[in-house]
Amino acid sequence: MPTEQPADRGGPSGSGADLHLELRGPGGKRDRLMRALREAIASGRLAPGTRLPPYRGLARDLGLALNTVGDAYGELVAEGWLTARQGSGTRVARRSTPLPAERPSRAAPPRRRPELDLRPTSPDASRFPRTAWIAATRRALHAAPHDAFAVPDPRGRPELRLALTEYLARARGVRTAPHRIVVCAGTAGALHLLGLALPGTIAVEAYGLGVHRAFFETGGRRTVPLPVDGRGAVVEELAGAGADAVLLTPAHQFPTGATLHPERRAAVVDWARAGGGLVIEDDYDGEFRYDRQPVGAVQGLDPERVVYLGSASKSLSVALRIGWMALPERLVPDVLAVKGPREMWSTSTDQLTLADFLTRGAFDRHVRLMRRVYLHRRDLLVRTLAERAPHVSVSGIAAGLHAVLTLPPGTEADTVRAAARQGLAVDGLAQHRHPDSPVPPTDGLVVGFGGLPDHAFAEALSALCSALPPP
Amino acid sequence: MPTEQPADRGGPSGSGADLHLELRGPGGKRDRLMRALREAIASGRLAPGTRLPPYRGLARDLGLALNTVGDAYGELVAEGWLTARQGSGTRVARRSTPLPAERPSRAAPPRRRPELDLRPTSPDASRFPRTAWIAATRRALHAAPHDAFAVPDPRGRPELRLALTEYLARARGVRTAPHRIVVCAGTAGALHLLGLALPGTIAVEAYGLGVHRAFFETGGRRTVPLPVDGRGAVVEELAGAGADAVLLTPAHQFPTGATLHPERRAAVVDWARAGGGLVIEDDYDGEFRYDRQPVGAVQGLDPERVVYLGSASKSLSVALRIGWMALPERLVPDVLAVKGPREMWSTSTDQLTLADFLTRGAFDRHVRLMRRVYLHRRDLLVRTLAERAPHVSVSGIAAGLHAVLTLPPGTEADTVRAAARQGLAVDGLAQHRHPDSPVPPTDGLVVGFGGLPDHAFAEALSALCSALPPP
Repeated sequence: MPTEQPADRGGPSGSGADLHLELRGPGGKRDRLMRALREAIASGRLAPGTRLPPYRGLARDLGLALNTVGDAYGELVAEGWLTARQGSGTRVARRSTPLPAERPSRAAPPRRRPELDLRPTSPDASRFPRTAWIAATRRALHAAPHDAFAVPDPRGRPELRLALTEYLARARGVRTAPHRIVVCAGTAGALHLLGLALPGTIAVEAYGLGVHRAFFETGGRRTVPLPVDGRGAVVEELAGAGADAVLLTPAHQFPTGATLHPERRAAVVDWARAGGGLVIEDDYDGEFRYDRQPVGAVQGLDPERVVYLGSASKSLSVALRIGWMALPERLVPDVLAVKGPREMWSTSTDQLTLADFLTRGAFDRHVRLMRRVYLHRRDLLVRTLAERAPHVSVSGIAAGLHAVLTLPPGTEADTVRAAARQGLAVDGLAQHRHPDSPVPPTDGLVVGFGGLPDHAFAEALSALCSALPPP
Repeated sequence: MPTEQPADRGGPSGSGADLHLELRGPGGKRDRLMRALREAIASGRLAPGTRLPPYRGLARDLGLALNTVGDAYGELVAEGWLTARQGSGTRVARRSTPLPAERPSRAAPPRRRPELDLRPTSPDASRFPRTAWIAATRRALHAAPHDAFAVPDPRGRPELRLALTEYLARARGVRTAPHRIVVCAGTAGALHLLGLALPGTIAVEAYGLGVHRAFFETGGRRTVPLPVDGRGAVVEELAGAGADAVLLTPAHQFPTGATLHPERRAAVVDWARAGGGLVIEDDYDGEFRYDRQPVGAVQGLDPERVVYLGSASKSLSVALRIGWMALPERLVPDVLAVKGPREMWSTSTDQLTLADFLTRGAFDRHVRLMRRVYLHRRDLLVRTLAERAPHVSVSGIAAGLHAVLTLPPGTEADTVRAAARQGLAVDGLAQHRHPDSPVPPTDGLVVGFGGLPDHAFAEALSALCSALPPP
């Protein structure tokens, strides 16, 4: 047998005795050997074309069974790491360029959350009702039929649509039925579907979430901004806007906090009926009202002209990606056509659990509890500002998880920066403003009081007051 | 006081005594009164403009407290159902057109599942490991930090990315790290993101899932079909195809069932390296291999040129919408840029639970159990066909949850119809064929043995054999 092998690169793999392999990590001996060989090849230690020791020799040297090494070689050939040809032995597979050295694993820089966050993005995560949710999961998953784990219905679980029908009627005055509800991945998921299902031009409030607008701005479409004042969206201007649908936040305008005036509620439904338009009602925090019972949904005025959107994001957690649409009868097939034959986004586990949560009253209990928590924080916000910054007015405080502080013209950007220097993240109004809004911008801060746990909230308020412009 | 009110419509609402309201349903008296009034208005019983009884009178007639009725009227004014003006009393709000009568709720026709379903869409839903999943949920949600319920990281929960890194290395030979993994809503969610993040033309296997192709065919893009033979995708044809990336199912070609030959595994990586291309590896059922240990992922040959996709859809349940991408380092920012600043699709509850499931070995145990179940069914399929239809050849049986039955040319459509007449749903190859495929179609059936519980499987096989064309 020739001692010099053609195309051997030499080095540590000339014979079994020279091939150092550390067998470690989980799995059996064969797994460990395969891992070690892959690492040796990937790191360049075993260069392309290198002949491996005959498996008998390696088995002897490593104290492994013949079959173990033989199987390992065979596996790595099947995977393409090695080649095996008669008369040429088992070699490291050649490639057109050498394999790169294994990069050391770089921990990604941790995403830095600001120390204090008063942005209006989340309810209090520390209050997520874990025990109740776990109990609901247990009951719901035990009770579910087998088909709950089979190909999922794009309308969503029937248990959830039934529970939502009852809950929404009772708590929000929504008039719907299980067959008119479509479950989706939060409000974003709903708007994604509507953006695909609804033709034409959509009017949106001149202040609102850009990421929501964006669903109606794909493929060259424009959204038309509708001014907002102290009574909500100026729906009177819809008549001349040429829009086919309008996206509103009637219970608590985001971000300005105004409640849509009763006359405008009726007027926007009239507008829809007169011209065949559609109202899209984003009821994102409608359960949270402090001065009175929550205002019922606009949808109840005309279920055939209003799409009602809700989600668990403000009532339970922004990390649960679950929402719902109560649709006009005629739109259900259109939305389902866009969704496709099966549910691709919303998991059945959360749906089943939420259905139990709603039906058992756990949802109501949690909302009642949190309403008291957030009321307390709202009061603290109002009091603190009255004491330390009485020249700054607060609005939008009657409902929801955020309020608006009005600032002197031209001071918003500096105030946001001043807050950041104190480790406090806060939103200005500017980032929520529609780029085509005809109304001059208003300077202000959007202050969320949902996101922080109690002890941090007071500290954040203090930092906020320090950042505000002087009188 | 004049007895005739201007614009009164007369009828049952002329005075409190005539207004019949049935107070029923959940909630307190005020809720019930409001519900009854809304229903009366919505049904047309109380016409627009109709004056309601003064609230004192109604309170007296219904035996309710003054405040109850007063509050109810006030609420309904705020909601826009009623108007209240000095000197004109409380009236039903006018609208430009009358409200439609409340439609009786129509139960949607139930979606009819075929009685027997041998389509390759789902693992056995009756075997979802409910008890273990509930236990994992309990542990995971109790142990999670508060920020697990705050604004969710678009990369996915770190617990899950760490558990996946370890599991994928051990079980699939995937070389990655937590910072290179992005969690998504199943494989569909992953391809949705890649369709947005990757420029250029994508080559796909000439037989494959149309819904997956579609993610790379938006906005006028075309996908290029790559022929498939008994050794998987004919990757040799990539050189002249002008594609920037190729989507493959190497462990078990969907739908033909072939395993990508080892030489082609190395060759496709070479192609990617030579021209700066990308391989997208859909490892949808890679854990299920019957004749040998599972073949490792192609990704392990070059993590910088291969995107590895996996999901829980075949191993756990198609109703859990959870998947993962192990990305080349340089693509991570691109994918995250498309995803946006927060996770909008995948719920944190499933992510946390899956992390526990993987870490505790429950996932491995379940896969080992199901591998035995599916092996038994595969054997039953092969035996049954050998006995009852020996002229029909079966392929793709070495792995996965489906196999392919080759049919005589021109018989596929008739066979699918014959099966349907027996209440059996089965896929032909035709529906998975790329419309631009240059290769003439092959007639065959794609038979899934994952979806049905054991007792129904034998019955389905019998129906299948009855539907096959004679020798």
